[in-house]
Amino acid sequence: MSRPPLPADAVEMLRRPNPAVMATLRSDGAPVSAPTWYVWDQSEGGAGSVLLSLDEGRVRLRHLGADPRLTLTVLQDGDWYTHVTLLGRVVDLRTDEGLTDIDRISRHYTGQPYPDRVRARVTARMRIDRWHGWGAFKDSDQASV
Amino acid sequence: MSRPPLPADAVEMLRRPNPAVMATLRSDGAPVSAPTWYVWDQSEGGAGSVLLSLDEGRVRLRHLGADPRLTLTVLQDGDWYTHVTLLGRVVDLRTDEGLTDIDRISRHYTGQPYPDRVRARVTARMRIDRWHGWGAFKDSDQASV
Repeated sequence: MSRPPLPADAVEMLRRPNPAVMATLRSDGAPVSAPTWYVWDQSEGGAGSVLLSLDEGRVRLRHLGADPRLTLTVLQDGDWYTHVTLLGRVVDLRTDEGLTDIDRISRHYTGQPYPDRVRARVTARMRIDRWHGWGAFKDSDQASV
Repeated sequence: MSRPPLPADAVEMLRRPNPAVMATLRSDGAPVSAPTWYVWDQSEGGAGSVLLSLDEGRVRLRHLGADPRLTLTVLQDGDWYTHVTLLGRVVDLRTDEGLTDIDRISRHYTGQPYPDRVRARVTARMRIDRWHGWGAFKDSDQASV
């Protein structure tokens, strides 16, 4: 595990619409994972952060309200041996007014705004505390998976 | 979330060499995720279980020794909107004598035995307590991601 900032080539990969899986903590402390869309933001002083969007009814939202710690593994699209895992916490949870955040994320993955205009969504910003890279972005001499 | 056994079509997907991400708990209780190979075993009374292989030096091994709870999200290869998440715990951790388990898993993914014959490996069997499906294997009427 390394501390941010991430190297430029890892950031370049994270900026693409890759498959990703997030894991949060249930109320009993057990981990629960789920695929998710995300967008990488290089704002916030260059450290970089991740924007996630959750349906207002999503149980993960309650998890993150009770314990903000989460982890996100991003698989390079088409070559999942190359991947980056981010460890951190949600530092901001807010209603996605006008669905502007989910539209940004949806356009990033599909080229189109988000189709569901009815259900409210919540935007979560993940602060990166640690990261771990593999394949093209290996950050250590750790033995293979 | 549903209880096992999983429906036949979900099991059929899980039997294929799909990308997967597992998450375990660090000593401080924070979740940490990583891509992993796995194989689905329909043995054990038809309930089904997952076989994982870890390098002996892997920190996840210490995590699982301290808290056996883990979660595994399996993405359908080529269509990650369709996915199955498994929640459970490691019920068996043992040295992979002769590397027979990692060879089985490696052949499943690459058609070849595992190339590293030097480092010892540990086999972990995951018991499935709950599962959640999406896309073709949706197990609930929950709103979209």
